[in-house]
Amino acid sequence: MKIIAYSDAGKIALGVVTSDLHFLAVADVAPDLPARLIEILEMDGGLDRLRAAVAGKVGDRLLADVTLKPFLDRPNAMWALALNFKSHIAETGLHTNPDYPHLFMRTPASYVGALEPIVAPPEAVARAFDYEGELGVIVGKSGRYIPVERAMEYVAGYTCLNEGSVREYQMHNRQFGLGKNFEASGSYGPWLMTPDEFGDPGKHWVLTRINGVVRQRAPLDDMLIDVARTISYLSQGYHLRPGDLIAMGTPGALPPQPDDAEGRDLSRQYGPFPTPGLVHMRPGDWVEVEIDGLGVLRNPVIADPAHLLG
Amino acid sequence: MKIIAYSDAGKIALGVVTSDLHFLAVADVAPDLPARLIEILEMDGGLDRLRAAVAGKVGDRLLADVTLKPFLDRPNAMWALALNFKSHIAETGLHTNPDYPHLFMRTPASYVGALEPIVAPPEAVARAFDYEGELGVIVGKSGRYIPVERAMEYVAGYTCLNEGSVREYQMHNRQFGLGKNFEASGSYGPWLMTPDEFGDPGKHWVLTRINGVVRQRAPLDDMLIDVARTISYLSQGYHLRPGDLIAMGTPGALPPQPDDAEGRDLSRQYGPFPTPGLVHMRPGDWVEVEIDGLGVLRNPVIADPAHLLG
Repeated sequence: MKIIAYSDAGKIALGVVTSDLHFLAVADVAPDLPARLIEILEMDGGLDRLRAAVAGKVGDRLLADVTLKPFLDRPNAMWALALNFKSHIAETGLHTNPDYPHLFMRTPASYVGALEPIVAPPEAVARAFDYEGELGVIVGKSGRYIPVERAMEYVAGYTCLNEGSVREYQMHNRQFGLGKNFEASGSYGPWLMTPDEFGDPGKHWVLTRINGVVRQRAPLDDMLIDVARTISYLSQGYHLRPGDLIAMGTPGALPPQPDDAEGRDLSRQYGPFPTPGLVHMRPGDWVEVEIDGLGVLRNPVIADPAHLLG
Repeated sequence: MKIIAYSDAGKIALGVVTSDLHFLAVADVAPDLPARLIEILEMDGGLDRLRAAVAGKVGDRLLADVTLKPFLDRPNAMWALALNFKSHIAETGLHTNPDYPHLFMRTPASYVGALEPIVAPPEAVARAFDYEGELGVIVGKSGRYIPVERAMEYVAGYTCLNEGSVREYQMHNRQFGLGKNFEASGSYGPWLMTPDEFGDPGKHWVLTRINGVVRQRAPLDDMLIDVARTISYLSQGYHLRPGDLIAMGTPGALPPQPDDAEGRDLSRQYGPFPTPGLVHMRPGDWVEVEIDGLGVLRNPVIADPAHLLG
């Protein structure tokens, strides 16, 4: 099952995708279910009720007619992992502890939905605005002290995620702080795919394209700490809640092709780790994060409208 | 004006404190105002309407009859500053950039209200569970690209805050992650005090007592980065929202008195920075964070009930 959130007459509504083009509105097929995904996840058997309500039905609405939105409305926590792919650890030269997930947090306002614009900081503020293609994990039920071997029971689904980062601000201090939390600097979507449909995350790959050029590509089993170990670790101190999001970390840059002038031009990079094959996101770009068998998250990059307003 | 949130028949209600013992229920004096503080802050002139509604009235309810709760319900962001007092920088020996606030985040679930129990991790999980007495700043209105000289206009009020930290987890990696986000490991309260009543933060001091012994005490003008600079910095990348919380950092430990056996016994400390005068929080303790002219935030420390349940 693939669940979307979309804007419907100024409110956020939920849908279930039934084909490449169509979806069913949850309010049509299951009007007794809440309009917020987190509230459905909080219900005992909420996802099962939704699955039963859409079974055998054909989508009567067009995905192209609606604006997708982030499907997690003010969760308690949006975790993210730093330095969790061996290729990214190698390109940064940074150290991470191999025994524990390297965790930090983002705010809901730092993420937009699929096809919504990602906002680049004004050049006077920062220039090293980087994509990070990642697997996003959505928690489906509450739990504490969860053993690794039961951790996957707590997953409601998966999504594509761009953990957009402003490197200059990330490097102001040891803690990433604001550099990982610029307004509308990242995205997730286009939908939540449930585990029965997605299967084992380790058997998939993630890739990132900028303007059609593949810039990151890695198998998800290249993670240092996998989904189950991350959930189990978090639960040692934190009571997991339905709707919590975990961004599982990004791989390194792909080496540029011989004819890839932009990817080979290190003088165009402003960040702390000049890396062949890395390009920054700039207004006018299109960014795509794809996970095979899950979907493609596409976003245009725009200049900061708040700055333009003064 | 001092605003509290309290539990009223299973729901969170708001009140305004009128004396050491009494308060007015907002639902009694301003039934047209929302029941959530963030929604009042989001209204144009919301706090002014509340002030007008309570003006000249005498509180008819007893503070002692209600259970105080955290007054911020799922804000978009709960920021916190690391290494922002010179005395704390000195005792840790850690470096921080003097030009930028050193920011990280906490989840709403990591904080409880005044007099609610703070939860110590089981000893098998962690032992270095530390208080951090701090000034909490609550944002009152939305804003971006805020100059330092206008930043204080964005403050709705102040509160006492205990930024409780689990040092072992904080040290697992460079990013503090879970170590600053154990469930119910910190607290803020007892109320939000508006700036007209509190005045200039730099003219106040903060202190922390464990079981009646003063363990931290510092003037708030010992901060490396003050409230105005922190708000201005955040607004370079983040659109501040009503109800956002900023924990302004904690001072160092006070040197122990000659007869203070516990404070002088470094062998009882489990953290990375054995420090005379530092003691860890343990079940059975009472922790108090006091800011002069603002109030006292008191919390008992209890053993983790989730762990006891298995």
